[in-house]
Amino acid sequence: GGSTVESLDYEVIENYAYREEQAQRGKLYVGYYVVVKWFFALLIGIGTGLAASFINISVENFAGWKFELTFSIIQKSYLAGFLVYLLINLALVFSSVYIITQFAPAAAGSGIPEIKGYLNGVDIHGILLFRTLIGKILGSIGSVGGGLALGKEGPLVHIGACIASLLGQGGSTKYHLSSRWLQVFKSDRDRRDLVTCGCAAGVSAAFRAPVGGVLFALEEVTSWWRSQLMWRVFFTSAIVAVVVRTSMGWCKSGKCGHFGSGGFIIWDISDGQEDYSFEELFPMAIIGVIGGLLGALFNQLTLYMTSWRRNYLHKKGARVKIIEACLISVITSVISFGLPLLRKCSPCPESDPDSGIECPRPPGMYGNYVNFYCSKDNEYNDLATIFFNTQDDAIRNLFSAKTIHEFSAQSLLTFLVMFYTLAVVTFGTAVPAGQFVPGIMIGSTYGRLVGMFVVKFYKKLNIEEGTYALLGAASFLGGSMRMTVTLCVIMVEISNNLKFLPLIMLVLLLSKAVGDAFNEGIYEEQARLKGIPLLESRPKYEMRKMTAKEACGTQKVVSLPRVVKVADVVSILRSSEHNGFPVIDHTRSGETLVIGLVLRSHLLVLLQSKVDFQHSPLPSDPIGGSRSIGHNFSEFAKPVSSKGLSMDEIHLSSDDMEMYIDLAPFLNPSPYVVPEDMSLTKVYNLFRQLGLRHIFVVPRAARVIGLITRKDLLIED
Amino acid sequence: GGSTVESLDYEVIENYAYREEQAQRGKLYVGYYVVVKWFFALLIGIGTGLAASFINISVENFAGWKFELTFSIIQKSYLAGFLVYLLINLALVFSSVYIITQFAPAAAGSGIPEIKGYLNGVDIHGILLFRTLIGKILGSIGSVGGGLALGKEGPLVHIGACIASLLGQGGSTKYHLSSRWLQVFKSDRDRRDLVTCGCAAGVSAAFRAPVGGVLFALEEVTSWWRSQLMWRVFFTSAIVAVVVRTSMGWCKSGKCGHFGSGGFIIWDISDGQEDYSFEELFPMAIIGVIGGLLGALFNQLTLYMTSWRRNYLHKKGARVKIIEACLISVITSVISFGLPLLRKCSPCPESDPDSGIECPRPPGMYGNYVNFYCSKDNEYNDLATIFFNTQDDAIRNLFSAKTIHEFSAQSLLTFLVMFYTLAVVTFGTAVPAGQFVPGIMIGSTYGRLVGMFVVKFYKKLNIEEGTYALLGAASFLGGSMRMTVTLCVIMVEISNNLKFLPLIMLVLLLSKAVGDAFNEGIYEEQARLKGIPLLESRPKYEMRKMTAKEACGTQKVVSLPRVVKVADVVSILRSSEHNGFPVIDHTRSGETLVIGLVLRSHLLVLLQSKVDFQHSPLPSDPIGGSRSIGHNFSEFAKPVSSKGLSMDEIHLSSDDMEMYIDLAPFLNPSPYVVPEDMSLTKVYNLFRQLGLRHIFVVPRAARVIGLITRKDLLIED
Ligand SMILES: Nc1ncnc2c1ncn2[C@@H]1O[C@H](COP(=O)(O)OP(=O)(O)OP(=O)(O)O)[C@@H](O)[C@H]1O
Ligand SMILES: Nc1ncnc2c1ncn2[C@@H]1O[C@H](COP(=O)(O)OP(=O)(O)OP(=O)(O)O)[C@@H](O)[C@H]1O
Ligand SMILES: [Mg+2]
Ligand SMILES: [Mg+2]
Repeated sequence: GGSTVESLDYEVIENYAYREEQAQRGKLYVGYYVVVKWFFALLIGIGTGLAASFINISVENFAGWKFELTFSIIQKSYLAGFLVYLLINLALVFSSVYIITQFAPAAAGSGIPEIKGYLNGVDIHGILLFRTLIGKILGSIGSVGGGLALGKEGPLVHIGACIASLLGQGGSTKYHLSSRWLQVFKSDRDRRDLVTCGCAAGVSAAFRAPVGGVLFALEEVTSWWRSQLMWRVFFTSAIVAVVVRTSMGWCKSGKCGHFGSGGFIIWDISDGQEDYSFEELFPMAIIGVIGGLLGALFNQLTLYMTSWRRNYLHKKGARVKIIEACLISVITSVISFGLPLLRKCSPCPESDPDSGIECPRPPGMYGNYVNFYCSKDNEYNDLATIFFNTQDDAIRNLFSAKTIHEFSAQSLLTFLVMFYTLAVVTFGTAVPAGQFVPGIMIGSTYGRLVGMFVVKFYKKLNIEEGTYALLGAASFLGGSMRMTVTLCVIMVEISNNLKFLPLIMLVLLLSKAVGDAFNEGIYEEQARLKGIPLLESRPKYEMRKMTAKEACGTQKVVSLPRVVKVADVVSILRSSEHNGFPVIDHTRSGETLVIGLVLRSHLLVLLQSKVDFQHSPLPSDPIGGSRSIGHNFSEFAKPVSSKGLSMDEIHLSSDDMEMYIDLAPFLNPSPYVVPEDMSLTKVYNLFRQLGLRHIFVVPRAARVIGLITRKDLLIED
Repeated sequence: GGSTVESLDYEVIENYAYREEQAQRGKLYVGYYVVVKWFFALLIGIGTGLAASFINISVENFAGWKFELTFSIIQKSYLAGFLVYLLINLALVFSSVYIITQFAPAAAGSGIPEIKGYLNGVDIHGILLFRTLIGKILGSIGSVGGGLALGKEGPLVHIGACIASLLGQGGSTKYHLSSRWLQVFKSDRDRRDLVTCGCAAGVSAAFRAPVGGVLFALEEVTSWWRSQLMWRVFFTSAIVAVVVRTSMGWCKSGKCGHFGSGGFIIWDISDGQEDYSFEELFPMAIIGVIGGLLGALFNQLTLYMTSWRRNYLHKKGARVKIIEACLISVITSVISFGLPLLRKCSPCPESDPDSGIECPRPPGMYGNYVNFYCSKDNEYNDLATIFFNTQDDAIRNLFSAKTIHEFSAQSLLTFLVMFYTLAVVTFGTAVPAGQFVPGIMIGSTYGRLVGMFVVKFYKKLNIEEGTYALLGAASFLGGSMRMTVTLCVIMVEISNNLKFLPLIMLVLLLSKAVGDAFNEGIYEEQARLKGIPLLESRPKYEMRKMTAKEACGTQKVVSLPRVVKVADVVSILRSSEHNGFPVIDHTRSGETLVIGLVLRSHLLVLLQSKVDFQHSPLPSDPIGGSRSIGHNFSEFAKPVSSKGLSMDEIHLSSDDMEMYIDLAPFLNPSPYVVPEDMSLTKVYNLFRQLGLRHIFVVPRAARVIGLITRKDLLIED
């Protein structure tokens, strides 16, 4: 899949067009630019908040309606209920996979590896298009509403990034939704900042965790970070939180159907365990280790699954993908309906009127103690409580305090094994899929299991199984995603309880360390598999012994003269795959001189527009002359997430082919250079930290014109 | 003060000594290095946690004992009580200022601007020494215990950084506390990472806010950040939190004297306001604006004060500094004791036995409703409640919920004006001083004032003045320090209440925006004043139009030949101030070639050791030969925070002067180079993002040997 991947240019190309553009900009423009930047941050926040609300309301309504219908039918016949349940799930999943395979293939999966790649400097074709956004929103509703073992949180990150990127190009040009006034962000660099905001907005919307969103953008997805950006990213996250809060407030009055206290993740467990004792640290450490092991295993299994799918299954076309997803939906329905049927019901515990927990829960409500296939009225089915439920409610039940002994160890273990398997199998199907919520499900299950043993053996009064479930959730996410601070903050924000911060930290430290002993985080593994060439922040160890010259190989450099024949340009573009070409000029004394780098995309623009063609093979004007070039800076701006022009779209007559172009005004006059024997470590740092696309390897200099030190860079306004 | 400032070398000098060192390192060494790194992170956490506990316990004991004594004496005579109060304060402040002026001048102030400078790449002499650490710890106890209008939080950041840096050099060499085994961190780069951990540890210890600590390091102090670092910084912060928690638990049993629930900042206001209505956003926005205005004013006033002090007062020597601090102590005592005397007492409100708040508070206890100079027993003095108290307790009282109408507007206003003035005047005296707690005091005062008006005019039941005090505190800190995410997280962590997150965000957004309209943040302003040349993350606007050549001026480059006469080295080092010199060699064909950069500090080491002196003026060996050089890599390592060798310490005979040195093995063979006409913006980015010290400006290259792209850097292990 390397063919659809292209590098981004985060460097500013300081060609004549750029300088002219800069010179024209007055103080007013700078002000306008700042205003638009913040206005976009606001819009990203509002857009992502609204998209998240829409998805949540839809999912809760579909799921609520589904469970309501099923519960009413099973009063008469469990078989009919099962069929209805299965068919509704199938219909939802089918709609999702159909949309994805037919209209928006780039919207499959979580999208986080792709966004990570984008922010690392590689553009994967199609991931930030308008149709991807729409596909992701609608697909998420189907796949999550259809009860698959996946979540809607990862997709929200992708949705936020899409919204940001679309705003960055001033709307979608294809669908005529664009506005010239908003097209101020012409470089990949500006768009990168917007997409960073979008990612944070996505997490903030998914978990109602604004600080977590900022940290997620910082720790997991971005590769470059400026501290000014923090402020804007934070603003976006705050807006999302406000929008989500407002939309939930609006829904409280019952306008949104089944969407009530469920939906938006926030499992308030502030009435949980008050304090913890020293001895409890041991079982908690065990949870951390289990999380690391199961998380690493999850990464490994999904890696095998995905590579198998890529190499065999998904090669056979869209139909196979559709069948696969539908099959998995059927299996999921069978297991989640069937397994609770096999489970014997337990009698309700003596109810404590203070806790407000009823057993069994009244029909049509959310809550613990589901009565499902029980012979008596005051019984409940503990497996159905977690399995035959939406994931949000299941997690709420697993996290719940004051419900000691609600679940039997056997049920939890059954659920753990089955759900883990389902999550592994579901991962990689052609539907939008997040790993956060399934991860929390898995983690909280074994967390609660450990909690049960603690309650049994430590015989302390104030231990809550819900707290252990929370720690388990943190540990599994840590073991799989390998985030730390972010997860810590997200877990605290969703559980609304600061007391557990040190415990969550302990668990995350362990689970990450254990997981790292086996493999990389799930997003890195997936990115590697998808052929997204991520550059890590640290150079590889072997690079210390390599030089720049060794790295760039023995290939002859394909370069262009300053004034070049159109036919030559065409043949070079046709015969090579490179995206940048050094431009070499001759001084009067006959020596050669590297005057810059010209990009393939810019050459294509020049060839298409033809206005710069000239008959003479001599430079039209000395460099630095005041000739106004016939191009606007924005003509060179690449459309977001698309390949731009290609050679096939350009038609040149044979007269044209005999003309010349003076490249001087269009090249990047000073790309970064490194001497040939610089160690690759240093070259890597330069490339990675500045987000470059091309570096010239040149011979050692003959003399030093000057030195730049800190003093030279301290210019006061 | 520019003479004591020197740049740090974050770049790895890849000379022969370094390469030999690298070659010798086996897999085992790499493992050892990682273990030591994490072990140091642990030690930094433990050390900072213990230092913070020690300071807190001492301060609380001094202050508690002081107030106890005073309260017991004023039962008989207010005059005698006042004298005792004044003298104890004076003694404490005197001890602090004496220690600072005589033993550890670098420990004065908050230290945050200096640490910021260090992490930006400039070393200020003496800030990370062992004596600075001790001075800071003891000085903080005196100045905070002595009741000055300053806090101990800023100093804790400096303390954390000192501990980290001392560990990084393997102990203090001067005091023979060092260990060879721990001296694995020889470069400024490794030390930078440790100091970053130390900063986070400081904030984590100060506020018991581990996530806040990480964010503080990230947002405020560091200039470079790697995502791997986050993990280690987070670990350190977590350790601090655990250590502090343990030491507090140990003190609970009464072993620590007056140190009880007071001390470590954590103003739990989780029993505060439950919800907020839309109309409340307006007064909250007003708080944000006030915070911005007062914060910017504070920065401006302290700037004037500090520059006046530097230019006039402190030039006159240590004695003036001591007198100044003592005078301010006396004034502070007079005001904090005297003003409450002038205030008429109010009758106690009808007590609500549920709230657990007694009025007046029992003698010798902490709490609201202080009975001070009241004629009746069931009266309290609202001004004394905040003024005649430790700052921690005063803030707790200002934040307290369920105490509506405790403070009169008049008292709050008096306190605000007086304390603001005291804080401005105290800032810049020669004692360790933090701005967090005074900032929270000021902010919560006007916040509570606004809260009182809201309670009065909105006539809602669930409004708590304490909530407004919290928002006020956030707004003032935001207006003065201009941090955002960090402050938000710290405020949430210290108030232990997540519900106010969006409100704090709103307030911070406003106060930072308003403050930014006037001046820079307090740390930037102070750094500028102290002559610390911080490089901002964004290049200046004018740099777009400048080239590298213009920036480095017209000065002739001082360079060295490859084999250089000792006498020439000496004369060049004597005659120039530069710290780096290009080394120029001649090829056989007579052309010149820049072969690297040699640092002044390395030349000094060579001159001192003399082992590399040779009689022949020819290269001793072709470059790349296998001659083993007579130096260990660690000899070139600069001692932390000290100037290293100077010319005066080196004694050379006249025979020595006639010898030669071959510099080839000791130079940095490939410093980063830029072509002469690269725009200064790009040069700036290179310098700032990679943390460089020298860049060579060279002529344009004659040819391109190769291109480096992403593909070339994707080397699989
Ligand atoms: N103009 C050129 N002449 C010679 N070799 C080149 C030239 N440009 C790139 N190369 C080399 O060709 C290889 C692939 O180059 P290519 O231009 O496709 O870059 P890439 O890593 O795929 O990034 P991009 O996404 O920009 O295409 C690299 O190893 C690079 O060293
Ligand atoms: N070897 C040199 N020859 C000529 N000019 C130099 C040389 N080194 C530095 N300069 C110039 O001298 C000025 C001050 O240089 P100096 O070496 O003191 O650096 P600095 O900014 O003070 O940093 P440092 O902390 O490393 O001393 C700078 O403007 C720089 O361009
Ligand atoms: Mg390519
Ligand atoms: Mg200097």
